Amino acid sequence: MNKKIITYQKLINDQISKIYFSDRPKNLYEPLKYVLSLKSKRLRPILSILSYKLFQNKIDDIITPSISLELFHNFTLIHDDIMDNADLRRGEITVHKKWNKNIGILSGDILMIYAYKLLEELNPKISGKIIKRFNEISIQVCEGQQYDMNYEEENSIEEENYLEMIRLKTAVLIGFSLELGGLVANCDEKITKNLYKIGEMMGIGFQLMDDYLDVFGNSDFGKKIGGDIVSNKKTYLMIKLLERSDKDDLEKINDIKKSNDEKKKVKIFSELMLKYNINTITKESINSYFITALKKLDQIECNLNNKSVLRKYFEEVMVRVK
Amino acid sequence: MNKKIITYQKLINDQISKIYFSDRPKNLYEPLKYVLSLKSKRLRPILSILSYKLFQNKIDDIITPSISLELFHNFTLIHDDIMDNADLRRGEITVHKKWNKNIGILSGDILMIYAYKLLEELNPKISGKIIKRFNEISIQVCEGQQYDMNYEEENSIEEENYLEMIRLKTAVLIGFSLELGGLVANCDEKITKNLYKIGEMMGIGFQLMDDYLDVFGNSDFGKKIGGDIVSNKKTYLMIKLLERSDKDDLEKINDIKKSNDEKKKVKIFSELMLKYNINTITKESINSYFITALKKLDQIECNLNNKSVLRKYFEEVMVRVK
Repeated sequence: MNKKIITYQKLINDQISKIYFSDRPKNLYEPLKYVLSLKSKRLRPILSILSYKLFQNKIDDIITPSISLELFHNFTLIHDDIMDNADLRRGEITVHKKWNKNIGILSGDILMIYAYKLLEELNPKISGKIIKRFNEISIQVCEGQQYDMNYEEENSIEEENYLEMIRLKTAVLIGFSLELGGLVANCDEKITKNLYKIGEMMGIGFQLMDDYLDVFGNSDFGKKIGGDIVSNKKTYLMIKLLERSDKDDLEKINDIKKSNDEKKKVKIFSELMLKYNINTITKESINSYFITALKKLDQIECNLNNKSVLRKYFEEVMVRVK
Repeated sequence: MNKKIITYQKLINDQISKIYFSDRPKNLYEPLKYVLSLKSKRLRPILSILSYKLFQNKIDDIITPSISLELFHNFTLIHDDIMDNADLRRGEITVHKKWNKNIGILSGDILMIYAYKLLEELNPKISGKIIKRFNEISIQVCEGQQYDMNYEEENSIEEENYLEMIRLKTAVLIGFSLELGGLVANCDEKITKNLYKIGEMMGIGFQLMDDYLDVFGNSDFGKKIGGDIVSNKKTYLMIKLLERSDKDDLEKINDIKKSNDEKKKVKIFSELMLKYNINTITKESINSYFITALKKLDQIECNLNNKSVLRKYFEEVMVRVK
């Protein structure tokens, strides 16, 4: 990892640890402090800082607003984990399991308010525009989560709907992370819109990469291979597989879906995905999002050294698929 | 009810029905529309309008921000009802029972974001200050709800802690409703602080009145008498009763608490409360909050006709205790 990125991560963590949270009621604020202390890449604030640095150098101006996105993101994690009944987050026990669901709901709520609170000190000349976009983005993230829950109860999803769901649930906030850097740096709307678009493309690419790595990654990344297959999750790869399988293989899929033999399930699905070139199709799709994003980044006029830092950061996060 | 108030209620309901909510995903937005359509006094927006009218007449400027408070209040109702596992709200089935808990969590979340969204169009000269106060107040409301949940699990609460809990959970938002009117009317900080204080006092009074009416109200108000007693809720009256009862009566209370005979339970508790003058003590406490608030209102220099409208509105809501 680039030294600069590590410095920024430290700076972000340092600033997060300095946010003033009351001590009482203890069981409202402890969960916040807990969730914010979990190991995290701090992807969103890092992107905001790198984006801001394309145009400006007064890094103090972007730190607090960038952390607002991290708080918002953590609010969605707490509530999503309740809805998904998840046991673990970032390798540690989830808030609603460590405390309880009610505390999870309420500490998520207050974390969202704190996300808004961190935008208070913005320059009044730009704060209106930023809060307006923040509201729009937040609404889309909630819509994405609702689509995700709805699709879980359906038998199949169309590729188009899946891509729209991950765009809303994940990519719009990545897009806004870059846009925020441009907004705080006082860039023209043309540039901030392009920054948003770059992040959105990258965000979709990242999510598809997650889907890919679940099946074709290696355990170097610490994630259990095949977790999505075992839990019958509707990933991009699964949608593509169902779309392309012939009648016999569709029957085979329907049978193995119900199986409790996890190893066998992962093996058969992986083999079928290779048979229908789902690995290649997915890689191509991911790459096309990344390439479009990087081309757009090339066209932005800004500090070239810092552009290459952002480009390298993208590549470091991307490299895992190659 | 005063004709003006009815006009304002209609105006508020009309504006609420015009808020643009997306149609999709349907099961995210339907619950919002449902909860906002339930019969409600619209206490908070009405207070904001009446407070604004003490100083200014351009009523269009206050309508949208006043509705922001109604949306925020409804967000807290949806989430509180999940936490309390409540079946009914405003006489109708709660969101999480009509749909499910996950939809309740998420539609509450998005309603909170919409509360912020309705503040977007504020004059930039005052929006910063208003959003800052809105954040502070929202945080306090969440703290109040957490204290309320915590106290449910405790054997007894001190009067001081109970009053602080209802101040946070209920009164600060009533206070902010009045303050908002003053802020939008561009009043001095001295006035807006007094407006806040008037509302906060009123808010505590209203909550104590709710506790009082549960035991000593009459069924004209459509609420089942003794509901709090049956569910062993720690109300102001109960705290006072436990504080004053002698040893024998405390034993009697502990026995009857566990009883399933609802009628007998309500009868015995009511008799004990009368024995220890809890009705009088509570009425005196309520009146002292109301009198302090009305005295403060008297001191505010503003349009006298409109001051008497606000005063009468308070009295109409208060009259039920007399």
